[in-house]
Amino acid sequence: MSTATELLTAIKDVGTDSARGGYSRHGFEAPELELREWFTAEAGKRGLDVEVDRNGNIWAWWGAPGPDALVTGSHLDSVPGGGAFDGPLGVVSSLAAVDALQAKGFKPGRPLALMVFAEEEGGRFGVPCLGSRLLTGATPAEAALALKDRSGDTFADAVKAAGLDPSRVGKDEEALSRIGRFVELHVEQGRGLVDLDAPVGVATSILAHGRWRFRFTGEGNHAGATPMTSRHDPMLPASQLVLSARWAASSVDGSRATVGRIEPTPGGTNVIASTVDVWLDARAPNDGRTRSVVERITAAAKQAARDEGCEVTVTEESYGDAVHFDSELRDEVVSALGKAPALPTGAGHDAGILAGHVPTAMLFVRNPTGVSHAPAEHAEPADCEAGVEALAKVLEKLVG
Amino acid sequence: MSTATELLTAIKDVGTDSARGGYSRHGFEAPELELREWFTAEAGKRGLDVEVDRNGNIWAWWGAPGPDALVTGSHLDSVPGGGAFDGPLGVVSSLAAVDALQAKGFKPGRPLALMVFAEEEGGRFGVPCLGSRLLTGATPAEAALALKDRSGDTFADAVKAAGLDPSRVGKDEEALSRIGRFVELHVEQGRGLVDLDAPVGVATSILAHGRWRFRFTGEGNHAGATPMTSRHDPMLPASQLVLSARWAASSVDGSRATVGRIEPTPGGTNVIASTVDVWLDARAPNDGRTRSVVERITAAAKQAARDEGCEVTVTEESYGDAVHFDSELRDEVVSALGKAPALPTGAGHDAGILAGHVPTAMLFVRNPTGVSHAPAEHAEPADCEAGVEALAKVLEKLVG
Repeated sequence: MSTATELLTAIKDVGTDSARGGYSRHGFEAPELELREWFTAEAGKRGLDVEVDRNGNIWAWWGAPGPDALVTGSHLDSVPGGGAFDGPLGVVSSLAAVDALQAKGFKPGRPLALMVFAEEEGGRFGVPCLGSRLLTGATPAEAALALKDRSGDTFADAVKAAGLDPSRVGKDEEALSRIGRFVELHVEQGRGLVDLDAPVGVATSILAHGRWRFRFTGEGNHAGATPMTSRHDPMLPASQLVLSARWAASSVDGSRATVGRIEPTPGGTNVIASTVDVWLDARAPNDGRTRSVVERITAAAKQAARDEGCEVTVTEESYGDAVHFDSELRDEVVSALGKAPALPTGAGHDAGILAGHVPTAMLFVRNPTGVSHAPAEHAEPADCEAGVEALAKVLEKLVG
Repeated sequence: MSTATELLTAIKDVGTDSARGGYSRHGFEAPELELREWFTAEAGKRGLDVEVDRNGNIWAWWGAPGPDALVTGSHLDSVPGGGAFDGPLGVVSSLAAVDALQAKGFKPGRPLALMVFAEEEGGRFGVPCLGSRLLTGATPAEAALALKDRSGDTFADAVKAAGLDPSRVGKDEEALSRIGRFVELHVEQGRGLVDLDAPVGVATSILAHGRWRFRFTGEGNHAGATPMTSRHDPMLPASQLVLSARWAASSVDGSRATVGRIEPTPGGTNVIASTVDVWLDARAPNDGRTRSVVERITAAAKQAARDEGCEVTVTEESYGDAVHFDSELRDEVVSALGKAPALPTGAGHDAGILAGHVPTAMLFVRNPTGVSHAPAEHAEPADCEAGVEALAKVLEKLVG
């Protein structure tokens, strides 16, 4: 019988990133594959039967697989230089909750599975929740297979290298039909539970969320020999976009807009860039406000490009509308816990993708600083164990 | 007997960069090593004796090495995604000029060497003219050996892998003392000769030039879960720096300021960066104006960092004052050519580093678009041959 903290300690050296700090564990790269093997072995120790679906998601069944199953889980991949909790906490808590239930001799009254989703962060192929999006058909197989990582390898290459068949990637009605209800435990990515003084809470909603790639094209040239008045430097409108994102998000209630990735080509110090790619992450409480933020930023980017004599193209790389979790299931979860505060989140999750298909709930574990997607992400051991206890209660109630 | 165009054609497939376009031939990486071997073989065909100095610069001697030599040459490395002419044109023109002189039975009356300088662009280790800076002592050995490339390999690692002894890198009085006068032929990096309607010209001066790295440090966090009002996002002041560079350079006469490289860490789409590194290339006709541009940009960057609750540190990675080439040697060069216009340049060269030690001159070959450090960089074959003919006349006059 293991605690969540013991299980996190067991994987603490996998995928550390000495350059960025924290962890870089991207879908189907060596560290994530090592974590998948580790999870499979841990599930085996608990007598669970492990299978990998057509899209690379792992299922560990307690008892026979079947329809109307209760499924719980999260992911093991990270953003580049991410924290130790985002994803793994939900996975290790599901293992620890099974331990707690097995220790008291509990037998599930209906099928129960622990899941590990593939490429949740989009840290390698740019599309978040790729495993659940493929499973549910939210992302078509052809689009996913053609996605490229920073080395130019496609998602098709990656799944093939991991022993999967690229021709079988895509919407998986059979696998999806087995999920009756889904519960995901996750570290909170904000200070909501700190303010509420509670170790564990339940989710009400997720912001609408998309990613857009802006490509600015100008004229590559020599940084020393080109007069300032003859330049068409795409770094100028790219920088204006970053500032416009701050302005636009600050002017639309509840919205957020971020540029965390920017890549000038060729990227030499003494070279005026010929193109600059900028990725915009934008979110808001509903579709209309999200679109409004992105439209304001796009208009500003186009004007800045025109002013510099540059071109700009905009590509929507992913989009998901706001999610409002099933209120009936949430009431059941809260009643299993006795009491727990309910709160929204700005972060996307596989639970948000599944919410369009089956009743879905989320449990959050308190994060003392609110920092996430960074090495400083944290949850106290006592809060992690409170999360395991809460998850065990919920599983017991929902499959009992 | 080869033309410059034939020699450029022989190396046209070495170091092509399919992602950026053009060439990526960085100091002591495989493509540049291949070009060095190619040059060594070409020098051998012409009966020249090749040696590599302690800093990795190649010398090919026509006749016995000796003091008061006339030396000509350039470099074979490129910026990332650079053109075919910046560097190689000077090297192939020196080989073709030797061909022309040998064909007419010319014998040098004093030592003559062709040189290939190491890492002129700083495309790998960030410091331009590293080979000539080390030779002359402008960059101390310890500083150079510790420089890192993007993979984390040091310059010490690179020279060792290339068969050199890192402990012997550094100021090389003996090698330097052999150079009596130095002449570098280079493609023009601007449209000066187009406007003057001349295929070949001579250089008067080079702008003062430095590179500065600005590191902005904020608070890495989740792009969706962090309210806009709680952010310390270093991308904001980094973007302000880019805009300030344009403004500052436009307000100081004859100056240029460019950001062609920016690297957020961790660089994830859904992550607020924790740090952003921005490289500033700044140049002006003299030291005072260059410092003034950099001071204005630094002040704006510091203010923007404060406004966002971020820190910023500034590191001068390289600096060279303006160069005014030796007027006596220039008069001799012009008289060898009959007539040739004289013009300044904003681009740095090994000739600029050597100019502090020996009389130095440069020949420029017309560039129809003025574009350089980009795949579109070009010189017409007829202009390249005019350059070879001019270089042969200059060598003949100076060593005859």
